[in-house]
Amino acid sequence: MEILRLYDFLPSGNGYKIRLLLTQIGMPFERIEVNITKGETRTPEFLSKNPHGKIPLLEIEPGKYLSESNAILVYLSEGTEFLPYDRFLRAQVMQWLFFEQSSHEPFIATSRYLISILGKAEEYQEAIKQRREPGYAALKLMEKHLSANQFFVGERYTIADIALFAYTHVANEGGFDLTQFSAIQAWIERVKSQSGYISINQE
Amino acid sequence: MEILRLYDFLPSGNGYKIRLLLTQIGMPFERIEVNITKGETRTPEFLSKNPHGKIPLLEIEPGKYLSESNAILVYLSEGTEFLPYDRFLRAQVMQWLFFEQSSHEPFIATSRYLISILGKAEEYQEAIKQRREPGYAALKLMEKHLSANQFFVGERYTIADIALFAYTHVANEGGFDLTQFSAIQAWIERVKSQSGYISINQE
Repeated sequence: MEILRLYDFLPSGNGYKIRLLLTQIGMPFERIEVNITKGETRTPEFLSKNPHGKIPLLEIEPGKYLSESNAILVYLSEGTEFLPYDRFLRAQVMQWLFFEQSSHEPFIATSRYLISILGKAEEYQEAIKQRREPGYAALKLMEKHLSANQFFVGERYTIADIALFAYTHVANEGGFDLTQFSAIQAWIERVKSQSGYISINQE
Repeated sequence: MEILRLYDFLPSGNGYKIRLLLTQIGMPFERIEVNITKGETRTPEFLSKNPHGKIPLLEIEPGKYLSESNAILVYLSEGTEFLPYDRFLRAQVMQWLFFEQSSHEPFIATSRYLISILGKAEEYQEAIKQRREPGYAALKLMEKHLSANQFFVGERYTIADIALFAYTHVANEGGFDLTQFSAIQAWIERVKSQSGYISINQE
């Protein structure tokens, strides 16, 4: 089998999800840095690989690509301990993955991008302000769930935790205050203590 | 087995996805109308079923709930002709499902909601204007893909088509002009000709 190639941008939480899972599974991969702040996902060459112009992008074998971070997580975790085999538990994992992409990432990740990656908090203050309330709503929902559960699904660490951890643990970089969310904070520590854990800035 | 209960709102494209698939699979279900414009997803009773306060919500058996339309599609289609068995094809279905929720629905569905469901185009003109460009970007990407493919994945009708069809075929209700997208228009007709097709306003 060819080695997996991951087109990635180190500060990206979406890219980090894949790096973290691959490392925890123990699957070797080659990481190719693509700087999204310099338009490197918009070149004709990159667009020929992913017409959507986004990272992470996984090259499974030469010329065979898969995009969308959470779709990549599902693909890589099938048959591993990180995706439950039980049909309803697996459905709950999917539920949290879609929640992450529709109700969490657009607000929390985007705020972090504007403030800490682009460093343009002033220029984008209106966009950041609009994301405050829905971002906190997502965190409150997570807090409620984690107040009664150790992990998101089935009381075990799964890709649902990986997907939600990626941007939650750096939410402060998007101006979100996590100190009021004690269950989230305890869960962040549980995730960090998992075997094979790597940090977001670790290549 | 208990009959499935679907908490739903008839004009909702996310709800329609589930109605359409269940009808095409031939699985009976009870539909419970919840009017989101009247706050019926925010009552303590509904929030006890889905803390996220959203429809569609599938009650698989009494007290056992699943939310997020695309997670429900995956759950219901497993083992049917609407979800490929091949691992890479299934991953591509997931890719389009996440694309739909992160890059399509927030712009096209939301515009339709503000303009045609709430009827508040004037009040929300700034929010609608902000969604124009990313909405058209999603449609362009779909047009490109459909110019070379009959369906989204594996040249067969799957839940990827159902998920993308739901809000695309009524995109005009959100102020998006589909006349320039001939491949999308041809695909809409192909979806409408599928066995067991029902329209969005059909209970």
